[in-house]
Amino acid sequence: MTFAAPMSSKEARQMIRNNEWVKPTAGVANGYTQANLVVLPKELAFEFLLFCQRNPKPCPVLDVTESGSWEPSMVAPGADLRVDLPKYRVYRNGELTEERTDIIDLWDKDMVGFLLGCSFTFEHALVNNGIPVRHIQENCNVPMYKTNIPCVKAGRFEGPMVVSMRPIPHKDVVRAVQVTSRFPSVHGAPIHIGDPKLIGIHDIYKPDFGDPVTIREGETPVFWACGVTPQAVAMEVKPDIMITHAPGHMFITDLRDEQLGVL
Amino acid sequence: MTFAAPMSSKEARQMIRNNEWVKPTAGVANGYTQANLVVLPKELAFEFLLFCQRNPKPCPVLDVTESGSWEPSMVAPGADLRVDLPKYRVYRNGELTEERTDIIDLWDKDMVGFLLGCSFTFEHALVNNGIPVRHIQENCNVPMYKTNIPCVKAGRFEGPMVVSMRPIPHKDVVRAVQVTSRFPSVHGAPIHIGDPKLIGIHDIYKPDFGDPVTIREGETPVFWACGVTPQAVAMEVKPDIMITHAPGHMFITDLRDEQLGVL
Repeated sequence: MTFAAPMSSKEARQMIRNNEWVKPTAGVANGYTQANLVVLPKELAFEFLLFCQRNPKPCPVLDVTESGSWEPSMVAPGADLRVDLPKYRVYRNGELTEERTDIIDLWDKDMVGFLLGCSFTFEHALVNNGIPVRHIQENCNVPMYKTNIPCVKAGRFEGPMVVSMRPIPHKDVVRAVQVTSRFPSVHGAPIHIGDPKLIGIHDIYKPDFGDPVTIREGETPVFWACGVTPQAVAMEVKPDIMITHAPGHMFITDLRDEQLGVL
Repeated sequence: MTFAAPMSSKEARQMIRNNEWVKPTAGVANGYTQANLVVLPKELAFEFLLFCQRNPKPCPVLDVTESGSWEPSMVAPGADLRVDLPKYRVYRNGELTEERTDIIDLWDKDMVGFLLGCSFTFEHALVNNGIPVRHIQENCNVPMYKTNIPCVKAGRFEGPMVVSMRPIPHKDVVRAVQVTSRFPSVHGAPIHIGDPKLIGIHDIYKPDFGDPVTIREGETPVFWACGVTPQAVAMEVKPDIMITHAPGHMFITDLRDEQLGVL
């Protein structure tokens, strides 16, 4: 019996850089931490970093590039944020204008790249603890909702928190809190357990983003802060230009998920 | 038997604002989290915040003001960083030029205030866990040392990490790691246990800052990242102006220490 050697983060990025993988990255280079990308002009960088600092649950910062540099030197030395994601979205004045597979010609000396933790990491931890993740079972996107919970304002950045929801069996809810609390740099502990109305969600089967999932008898909806929040908030500022990853087409870092555990 | 009502953080700040307490703040408004202050011009704010982001153990950010505002709205709404610390130090071009009890006339519209976690919080946790803290027992300053561990550079900010040392009985070392790991926003887990030479400290009885303390038979020196690091690093950049708290004369926030525990 033989096993294929698992792909490393560097091999995965090379494959993506060569345009040999223009698909969602879930399951690619398994065990390596994947990240959300937000690219903004330097003029907005301090206020956006401050927004992340003040709202660490929806905006957990993994790395920030020096102004003009495309290298995330903390989490993937040698990588190039202009080409190492499979698909990008370009927003101008808050409107999606195009999708592309590289952003070389858009990255001028004033661009700053932000990598934010994503829920894949804590979902692996849940699964490894025997707690099922419904949207993985149902092979669809996680359901996401705008809430009535305001983020803490920073400069021009403000808006409501977006959350993702996973139905958890009653007996596993406490363990789910413990397991995800270990990973504050990828959204961490839930922000709400139970009644969706208490956080301004009126129909759990009509998410604002992603797909609805089944909530079975004996399960409680559990809500985590979601990485869509900073994108939604940044969009409201209508920057001349903002670039993000396309949904599901993440950046693969050299960090291993388990390294992000606080204890 | 009667107890005096313990002083609240707001009462303590009012007393300090009125210049009725121009002394170190250790033990004042016990249980409330105290913080280091660094004030820098906006031109340096993004790079300094990035430096803190990249070096969270020596530079754990508790709050950052909006550019020009003196209100730390996250940790002490209504407070005024220009008058609510008992003593300030003013540095010009990297040189200490004066100490004062307020900085009202120095805080122009370009100033940004950073509040960073301080070791008082985890020391309370150690003491509450029955682990003695030597410099408290010996009624002196904690010993601090420059190490050979480089901080991660951000823009113009770079330099070695400064650490503080507490001798811990062998039997308590594991518990000391656990207890302080709960508090990442106030330096968190140690960065080194044991032989000082391994981190570039050649004489444990000659600290670079603070006072030497006794290391008894059966004790191990344990080293934590220290909040002096960002000040030392910022000084090297020689900003036109930088303002900090005077040593031991901290800002008292409305946070309770226990609220900073991650689990």
